[in-house]
Formats: sequence, C-alpha cells, structure tokens
Amino acid sequence: MSGPRYTDVVAGLPANVPFVGPEAHQRETGRVFRARLGANESVFGPSPKAVEAMREAAAGAWMYGDSESHDLRHALAGAHGVAPENIMVGEGIDGLLGNLVRLVVAPGDAVVTTDGAYPTFNYHVAGFGGVLHKVPFSGDHEDPDALIDKAAETGAKLVYLSNPNNPMGSRHPAATVARMVERVPEGTLMVLDEAYVEFAPDGTAPAIEAEDPRVIRMRTFSKAYGLAGARVGYAIGAADLIARFDRIRNHFGMTRISQAGALAALGDRDWLAHVQGEVDRARRRMAGIATANGLEALPSATNFVAIDCGRDGDFARAVLAEMMSRDLFVRMPGVAPQDRCIRVSCGTPADLDVLEEVLPQALAAARGG
Amino acid sequence: MSGPRYTDVVAGLPANVPFVGPEAHQRETGRVFRARLGANESVFGPSPKAVEAMREAAAGAWMYGDSESHDLRHALAGAHGVAPENIMVGEGIDGLLGNLVRLVVAPGDAVVTTDGAYPTFNYHVAGFGGVLHKVPFSGDHEDPDALIDKAAETGAKLVYLSNPNNPMGSRHPAATVARMVERVPEGTLMVLDEAYVEFAPDGTAPAIEAEDPRVIRMRTFSKAYGLAGARVGYAIGAADLIARFDRIRNHFGMTRISQAGALAALGDRDWLAHVQGEVDRARRRMAGIATANGLEALPSATNFVAIDCGRDGDFARAVLAEMMSRDLFVRMPGVAPQDRCIRVSCGTPADLDVLEEVLPQALAAARGG
Repeated sequence: MSGPRYTDVVAGLPANVPFVGPEAHQRETGRVFRARLGANESVFGPSPKAVEAMREAAAGAWMYGDSESHDLRHALAGAHGVAPENIMVGEGIDGLLGNLVRLVVAPGDAVVTTDGAYPTFNYHVAGFGGVLHKVPFSGDHEDPDALIDKAAETGAKLVYLSNPNNPMGSRHPAATVARMVERVPEGTLMVLDEAYVEFAPDGTAPAIEAEDPRVIRMRTFSKAYGLAGARVGYAIGAADLIARFDRIRNHFGMTRISQAGALAALGDRDWLAHVQGEVDRARRRMAGIATANGLEALPSATNFVAIDCGRDGDFARAVLAEMMSRDLFVRMPGVAPQDRCIRVSCGTPADLDVLEEVLPQALAAARGG
Repeated sequence: MSGPRYTDVVAGLPANVPFVGPEAHQRETGRVFRARLGANESVFGPSPKAVEAMREAAAGAWMYGDSESHDLRHALAGAHGVAPENIMVGEGIDGLLGNLVRLVVAPGDAVVTTDGAYPTFNYHVAGFGGVLHKVPFSGDHEDPDALIDKAAETGAKLVYLSNPNNPMGSRHPAATVARMVERVPEGTLMVLDEAYVEFAPDGTAPAIEAEDPRVIRMRTFSKAYGLAGARVGYAIGAADLIARFDRIRNHFGMTRISQAGALAALGDRDWLAHVQGEVDRARRRMAGIATANGLEALPSATNFVAIDCGRDGDFARAVLAEMMSRDLFVRMPGVAPQDRCIRVSCGTPADLDVLEEVLPQALAAARGG
C-alpha cells in the first residue's frame, strides 16, 4: 500500500509555512504573551456594533452563509462607488490571493514581487507552481519602476505591490501608484494590496477605474476594522475578472457570522475614526520609545511600526528573540537590509507599557550576547 | 489594454456554480421561504453551548484564529481515538475537498465518482483540470465495486464515496465500505465523505486505521452539529497526507468564532442525541406525508428524505418548481433515474406542516400542468 500520488507541484513544495501564529508560539514555550503585537491585528477591537451583530448571528449559524455575500458586497460597492459586480468577498486577503494566483498562474509562469514583501503571496505563487522574480526594496520602499521593469522582462502574469507596505510601513503617494498602473505591461495583472490603507494619509489610494483590466485591489476587515479572526477580505476589479473567481472559489466559504460582522463594521464610521486615532497615538508613542532607546522608528502609514535596531539582521533577530522570551509577541522583516528592523504592531497603552519595559532589556541582552 | 491571462484550466471552466443558495433564490423572486428544507442544514440549530461559545468569542474576533485549530483538532483526535496529526480542520468539507483535489489532481488526471453524487466534489475536480469518470448508482445506492473497477481502469488519483449518500439518503453498512477500502487500487486515494454519518444507524462507519494510506475520511459540523454557517469540517487520514495540507492551505482561514463554536458543539453529546432524535422523528413524519400523497419516501440514513414522485425527472422537476413557487425551499437529484425524486431536509414540526400543506398542492399542479 502506497500513499497518494501528489501532483508534481505539490511534491516539490517545502514544509515551512508563511507565519507561525502566536498561539503556536505559546504552546511551544508554555508561556502566555503579555502583549500581542506581532500580527498587526487591531488590539483596539472591532466596532461594538460588529460584535453585537456577530453575537446576534450566532444562533443562526445552522444556516449556510449567503454564497454571494450579497448584502456586504452591495454595501462595499456603495462605499467605493463601484458596481457590486466589481467586488469579490473572500476569506481574507489571504484567501483571495490564493484564488487569484490559481486563476492566472500555471506551473512555470512568472510572477514579480518585492524581496521581503508579503510572504503569504509568495506562498500561494509557489503553491501553484509559479516562478517568483523578486526585486529589492529601494530605501525601505517598494520600487514601482523596478517591479514593472521586471514584469516586462519576465512576461509576468502578476506583479504585486502592497501600499502601504508590510513589513516596513512605508507608502507611496497615489500618483506614484497611478503611474505604475499606467506602466503595467500588456498581459500582466497588477495586484495592489491595500490592507493597511485606512491608516495611511489621504492621497495614498489612487483613483482607479473599477473596470481597469490592469489592476485588482485587495482590501480587508482584518486591520482597521479589527476583524482578523472573522476572515473577511474583498477584491475590487473588472467585472470579468471578479466573475472568474466564481468558477473556482468555495462558494459557501464565508461564514454567516463574519458576513454580519463585516457589514456592521463597515457601517460604523465613528469606530473606524476612533481606531485611526488610537493607531496614530500609538505610532507616536512607539516612535518616542524607540528614540528613548537610541533607535529610529521608521515613518509608518500602517498600524505597525518598523523600529530600526541600528545594526544588522543578526542583531535585530537577537533583539526579537529577547523580546519574545520576555513574552512580547513581535515579528520582523525576513530579508536584508530590512531585517535590521523589528516590526511592532500598534498597541493599547498597556501593551506599549510592556514595550517600553521590555525593549531596553532586550537591547541590553542582545548587545551583551 | 487586455485582461489577465488565465490558466488553460481556468479558461475552460464553465460559469455555472454547484448550488444556488436560498438567499439568492429569495432575491430573485422577491419572496421569503416559509420553510428552508433544501440545503440539508440542521433546522434544530447548534448546541446552545456552541451558540454561547460563539457569542463569547465575538469580541475577540480582532485576533486571528489559531492557525493550527489546536484545541479543536486535539478534541477531535480524542473523540476518534486517533492522533492530532491524523486530523485536518478546514473550511467545511467543501474547503477540504478543494484542497485535497489540489494536492493530487493535475490537469488530465482521472478521478472517479458516482454520476449524481456530490456536485461540489465534481466542481473542484473540474476546477483543477481533472477528468471525471462517473459510474451509475445501483438501485439508489452508490456502487462500490463499480467505483473501484473504474478507478482501476482509469488509473484514478481519487475515488469518491459518500456514505451515507447525498442526495439519495442511502447507505452501505460498514463491512461493505471496509471491503471497498481493501480493493482500492495502488496509487488511488479513496475519499470517504461521511458528512451525514451521525444520522446513520450504528454499523455504518467502518473502523479504518487512521494511518491507512488508502483512504481519507471527511466529517463536518455542518449537519448533525448544526453549524453549516460556521464552516468547520475535518479530515481524518494518514499523518503524511494530513501534513501535506499545510503546504497549500490558507493557514489562518478558520475563523476564531467557528473554532470556538465547533469545540463547544463537539462537547455537547446531549444536544447531538437531541438532534438525532428530532431527525428521526422528522423522517418518520415525512415518510407518512409521502405515503398520504401516494408517494414513496426512500429509507434515509441522513437528515433529509428523498421522496420518489413516481414518474420521471421532468415530473419531479415540475413538482419541485411548484413547491418552490409556494415558498418551500427544496432541492432534487440532478441525474436520471434518481431525478424522479425530490430531496427534502428534515424540518421542525412547523416546517413539516408547510410540507404537508404544499406537497399535495404541488403534485396536483404538476399533474395538471
């Protein structure tokens, strides 16, 4: 008796996963994090209206969710001034990226991204047998021209840009992104991941015609709306592209409770403004904490701050390990020279008290090590 | 400007979807169903403990769910007497089937199923470019020998058996399934979909060594546990196969609320027994309603009943249309000769009052038409 015969693509995939979650860390160490600032979750929580909507929806969980996420899709269309046919709701941006890659990437197809950008995108590309071509950051910013040049050179099916960028927190103004869209090569689709855009200054999200066939935008309820654990993302794109998702997606994959929660969250603009204010306050305090420790906090257009530890990646990794061992959950960029930084999500005042306490200890331990 | 270049597989996929949900029907007609008996949901609802667990988890939805569904996986392992490494939790059986097909089916690979069995499995096979080979039902039962023979003949990567069967409600005893497992050809993986097994008599689920490389079992919280809208299914299989899912799945795809709900539901054996009793009561009454209308209800090992309308598929389709137009949501098998039946999910007493009222009207209208 032998096992199943995996596809060639699957047989070649490594066992590592894009991210180890905080619960998995805790199980490994047998300890509990004092502050959870590693996954860019919104510690400020979802709108109370969203919580109430989810609580009310719980008893109705015996019913499959609406396979078309109709009400949420229509509300999103209204919010963005596009047609419902331009919106696809999915199981987080992660789920949507997986389906998008599946739509266009066959084994051997080229895809372009920034070295050190979102690992889960890379995971999906590899998972469908795509060949990743990476261009370096340019001064902690993604490099639109280099990305486009590489896409043209490789005949890429997809070119990925996150704006604002994760993990650095940097951003390009809308005009730069719009120019990048204009340069997208024929036959390439640009994936504009705007997961953090609600934290960015006005003038970050470019105006893009929904029917523009060159670009698909990704948005999420996981960050500013505080619903990471509910798994709701959405894509905005040309109706023909959006309709293609219906040929491959898990139609009843959106939970009923999550649809209700996201719809209520979308309607609570006051809560969004509250969270934006809290994030701004946290970013300022975190910059102060960095400065007080002789470090530099990079400017952030997101709900996290990259703190430059001032030496190389090995040093930052040591600082991170010391923070983790002091029960503060944080993460860091994976490639040089961005890996000179640690990445800390915006926290509540109590969370940042922990950061303020732990960072100097971790630095001292890493320097002494 | 042209659109994206889809893969050859995707370019060849049709636009139709496996199921149209009841909400979509309602939007189309502008009417509201009086009874929702078409999707084999559990109208008896989830355990009150599951509802409470989900309500309590709502405020914590800002946190990503545990990417390993650790607590649920371990509880399931305990319940089944297998190792946690033999359990994969996923976004319903639909989501797990999609990932399973992706693991083994490359374009052109053969897959064997029963003509008229679960359409969503077929949808996933087509979605990854697999070639479906279908064998007919044998007297409203799936035909294990024919399935195995066809798998051997075609060199199939997967052979699918649902036991109990959807949409007919029939079942094979455990010994028959065990014999089928013994006959699985080298290099074929048997997919044993046991979504409805909690409604079947003892002696339906065979004992299978979790590490048996020939078979993977699928179970769900969508049916007996009343959590269709929470999207929680699980697979039981050899640890090597289960681990392969980690190389392709959406790791943070399980919502935090759903994990909490499923864990609580699993622990409430009294509620499960209550639901099983209600389903049994409903099946008996539905059989009586069928008989009173001169029709035959097929024996059911599930939470639905196939009612033989006594003529051909066109007649049953007419009956179904008349029921739908009278605001009773039901479905029916898609292929002959099983399409002589309509498929009605077990309802509450109030739901079955609607069935009792509407069925004779629908029959009369269909006969008069």
